[in-house]
Amino acid sequence: MKEARYFYVPNAAVETALPAEEAVHATRVLRLKEGDELFLMDGEGYFYQAEVTLATAKKCLYAIRQTLKQETCWRGKIHLAIAPTKDMGRMEWMAEKATEIGFDEISFLDCKFSERKTLRTDRIEKIIISAVKQSRKGWKPTVNEMSPFHYFIENCSNQGRKYICHCYPEIARADFFTAISNDESSLSGDDITVLVGPEGDFSIDEVRYALAHGFESVTLGNSRLRTETAGLSAVMMSQLARRV
Amino acid sequence: MKEARYFYVPNAAVETALPAEEAVHATRVLRLKEGDELFLMDGEGYFYQAEVTLATAKKCLYAIRQTLKQETCWRGKIHLAIAPTKDMGRMEWMAEKATEIGFDEISFLDCKFSERKTLRTDRIEKIIISAVKQSRKGWKPTVNEMSPFHYFIENCSNQGRKYICHCYPEIARADFFTAISNDESSLSGDDITVLVGPEGDFSIDEVRYALAHGFESVTLGNSRLRTETAGLSAVMMSQLARRV
Repeated sequence: MKEARYFYVPNAAVETALPAEEAVHATRVLRLKEGDELFLMDGEGYFYQAEVTLATAKKCLYAIRQTLKQETCWRGKIHLAIAPTKDMGRMEWMAEKATEIGFDEISFLDCKFSERKTLRTDRIEKIIISAVKQSRKGWKPTVNEMSPFHYFIENCSNQGRKYICHCYPEIARADFFTAISNDESSLSGDDITVLVGPEGDFSIDEVRYALAHGFESVTLGNSRLRTETAGLSAVMMSQLARRV
Repeated sequence: MKEARYFYVPNAAVETALPAEEAVHATRVLRLKEGDELFLMDGEGYFYQAEVTLATAKKCLYAIRQTLKQETCWRGKIHLAIAPTKDMGRMEWMAEKATEIGFDEISFLDCKFSERKTLRTDRIEKIIISAVKQSRKGWKPTVNEMSPFHYFIENCSNQGRKYICHCYPEIARADFFTAISNDESSLSGDDITVLVGPEGDFSIDEVRYALAHGFESVTLGNSRLRTETAGLSAVMMSQLARRV
């Protein structure tokens, strides 16, 4: 028996073949053959122990032997909405690390002071899938297309609390970690949506607009963080406050 | 008045000139001239508001106008000892992010399952200095040369608690964040030393050796983390537990 291999297969339970890229990896790189064991992850809470039933250069069919329901590791949904940095590499590592640590959804914001106005979410999606496999996550985080700040604010609904991190001392800010550690989850639900601005911060009008739409004003602490570090810190604090 | 510029100058209070590299940056890149304001950071708890007194192509002399004592943002010292990853880029970003978030010392361990047996600490030092400037930290984290695991364990002394993170289910593990959040700092001091192993983990003998030398057995949680993500998580948790 070869070392167990993990593949990301959306709808693994109803499909019978690995997606094209995964098939190439399975048959050409790992040289899996009929009868070899493999593990499928559907990104929706299930792993499957399976067996290769046909392996050609381009195709890899499988049969599921066992369904392995995954346990949730944190309560509620953790949703990060962030203004992407000019340097895409910084967003990519943040997406990888946030996936390893554990979160549910990422959105990208086009803000007044954003240096980056477009974003290839397909690259982020690939990096997240790779991290999901590497860290064996039961659920694949959702990646949303970039949206204008005001559109996001107006259309953001979750079952819990919504926060905006910013650096304006003239607007009172609660400590984010204290706020999410103490909140009455039975009243407000466990979901967290947290907004992180561009390197030049949100504009003060953007902050006020968010506050007028049910967001709470918070700070991540005393440290002066780059955007991607702030995003990752927000995810890690959410994870620590919501883990089960 | 030009935008305030920050320079790392060890012993800034007794020196009168920027170090060679900083001088080139100040005079050739930023084109600072006599009378321009600059800020010096000594990495030991002091910033200095200063003024350029002489600027040539290679030299930049200054006079200090005001001493600005920095406040500590966390209690005790946070010391991360980690087995470096094969890919140096991963260690470098971790060093950058840990500096932004805030920690005091980094050591590198040569372990049984280490993939990397040598390390250029001068590159890590440069990245940390750059992050200290960027995030305006009052203290520069200390960078130690790589040492064999057993040597580190035998010679590690701090005023607080020492922890080793590992994945062996047969050795009871406390939750790291809970342990450092609840510990009786008045009894044991505030310092934290935390060990993170290579991708293949510490050997079980290494874990037992550390436990026999006063280290406590801990886990960072349920997530399967890459080495550099585990290192950053340990720093972030320490920072959250020790911030003032």
